[in-house]
Amino acid sequence: MSWQASYDAYKARVEDALERFVPQGVPGPLRGAMLYSLLGGGKRLRPVLLLASHALLREPDQEALRFACALEMIHTYSLIHDDLPAMDNDCLRRGRPTCHILYGEAMAILAGDGLLSLAFETMLSSRHEKALEAVRIIAQKAGVSGMVAGQSLDVAFARETPTEDLVRRIHEGKTACLLTAPVLAGLTLAGADERALRAGAEYGGQMGVAFQIIDDILDLTGDERTLGKSVGKDETEGKLTWPALKGVEQARRDAERLTAGAVQALEPFGERADFLRELAQRTLNRIQ
Amino acid sequence: MSWQASYDAYKARVEDALERFVPQGVPGPLRGAMLYSLLGGGKRLRPVLLLASHALLREPDQEALRFACALEMIHTYSLIHDDLPAMDNDCLRRGRPTCHILYGEAMAILAGDGLLSLAFETMLSSRHEKALEAVRIIAQKAGVSGMVAGQSLDVAFARETPTEDLVRRIHEGKTACLLTAPVLAGLTLAGADERALRAGAEYGGQMGVAFQIIDDILDLTGDERTLGKSVGKDETEGKLTWPALKGVEQARRDAERLTAGAVQALEPFGERADFLRELAQRTLNRIQ
Repeated sequence: MSWQASYDAYKARVEDALERFVPQGVPGPLRGAMLYSLLGGGKRLRPVLLLASHALLREPDQEALRFACALEMIHTYSLIHDDLPAMDNDCLRRGRPTCHILYGEAMAILAGDGLLSLAFETMLSSRHEKALEAVRIIAQKAGVSGMVAGQSLDVAFARETPTEDLVRRIHEGKTACLLTAPVLAGLTLAGADERALRAGAEYGGQMGVAFQIIDDILDLTGDERTLGKSVGKDETEGKLTWPALKGVEQARRDAERLTAGAVQALEPFGERADFLRELAQRTLNRIQ
Repeated sequence: MSWQASYDAYKARVEDALERFVPQGVPGPLRGAMLYSLLGGGKRLRPVLLLASHALLREPDQEALRFACALEMIHTYSLIHDDLPAMDNDCLRRGRPTCHILYGEAMAILAGDGLLSLAFETMLSSRHEKALEAVRIIAQKAGVSGMVAGQSLDVAFARETPTEDLVRRIHEGKTACLLTAPVLAGLTLAGADERALRAGAEYGGQMGVAFQIIDDILDLTGDERTLGKSVGKDETEGKLTWPALKGVEQARRDAERLTAGAVQALEPFGERADFLRELAQRTLNRIQ
């Protein structure tokens, strides 16, 4: 199977399962707003990462799929809240109106709250013997020492002169944490030992920061038509990005170095890690 | 010990412990916004209910206190998001500026997200043998089939003609769920059997709806100075409340009936339930 076919197969499993985890009994307007954003497309990178990381040790089962869907709920909640007028004030995402444009701000806030709550409910319903360990990892990476921390730094220091340390902490929090979480959760559910978890953390961390740098380079240099979204927004709004701080060329070299580090970290998994190696490499290829 | 002294003792335990559960490593501005709201006073009714329900079977320990603090975080997150301009647009709470007035809307959204995340992290750190059961209960009652569901109905149907069924579902979701959760979680951590849990659910459900009706009656008839908050706001904004629907007199009778039901439900616990009986009765006394 080609790399792309593997990716699409993982993604299709997630797409097929997502709606099933949103209970029928949820009041209609709330369920509608949650599903609108949850089923609004996207790469499904985080759940694919979880399934593929599980596959480093053994084939992902229904319980891995449950955690994959929960992670996509957390990612979606963060996008809904990020898009709100008080935050990034985005009206479009993936070519469709954002949640608050269609459902109003109040319902969008609740849809985000609801998806975060449902992610935990979904994970806590698991009877997998490693469920508690996996949900602990995800809670930590998504919370006030992880993703929410990164977002808060972005908000608090948006108008200040960026330092390397600050931008690094924002990237690690906002992006790398929610890319490391699926790797560690997938490995944990598959029964990984300490050594495998360390390798996974290394891969997720380096790939995650590279991913954010690459995204920011594309925002500066990319073509709107190819990317399917507006570009130059970060620059206009004085966002704290790595290429803005270090220049595009240095940022490109850093992304290369981080990607090489991520690929290197997969060494202990041998050939089984080919999919994750190519995932990191393909992300980098977008700026080469 | 008098009832009031018991209440104050439970409350003091919660007040002393709350800050400890907010990690030092959380970025300053986020931690500040979270603590501002979390330590902003209030009756601490939900954590007191958890400790007192645990005490129906055995004295609450440090693990019960952990869950009590997590519940207060969930309650606080819901207040922060509720107060946002897109929701109730409240500038004052307990006589102090609301979170978004002081920290800005973006940080208030993140402080809410952070407190909800931290509540789960806090509960998931427990090594109590009943921890998983207790956190499942709280997740369900706080989530899209519980509190968030109630809030979404309030938002979605705010401008429509209220029906009894709708107002009941809003009260059960918004208020009763987060008053039943501490009773059930406290009992679960204390090792309750099915029968005790059924009695606790009955108490929490009836007391919770009574609590909301009483609050709404006070909003209609109360005195601002005594209540320490503005009154008449529900009426002005056309909020869906029981007294607005049924009249104050009928609502008062319903609150009496529900309180009697809640007190009755505590029968199996004998004298140990005196504190919870008086809690329900004192709430009712506020409108008598």
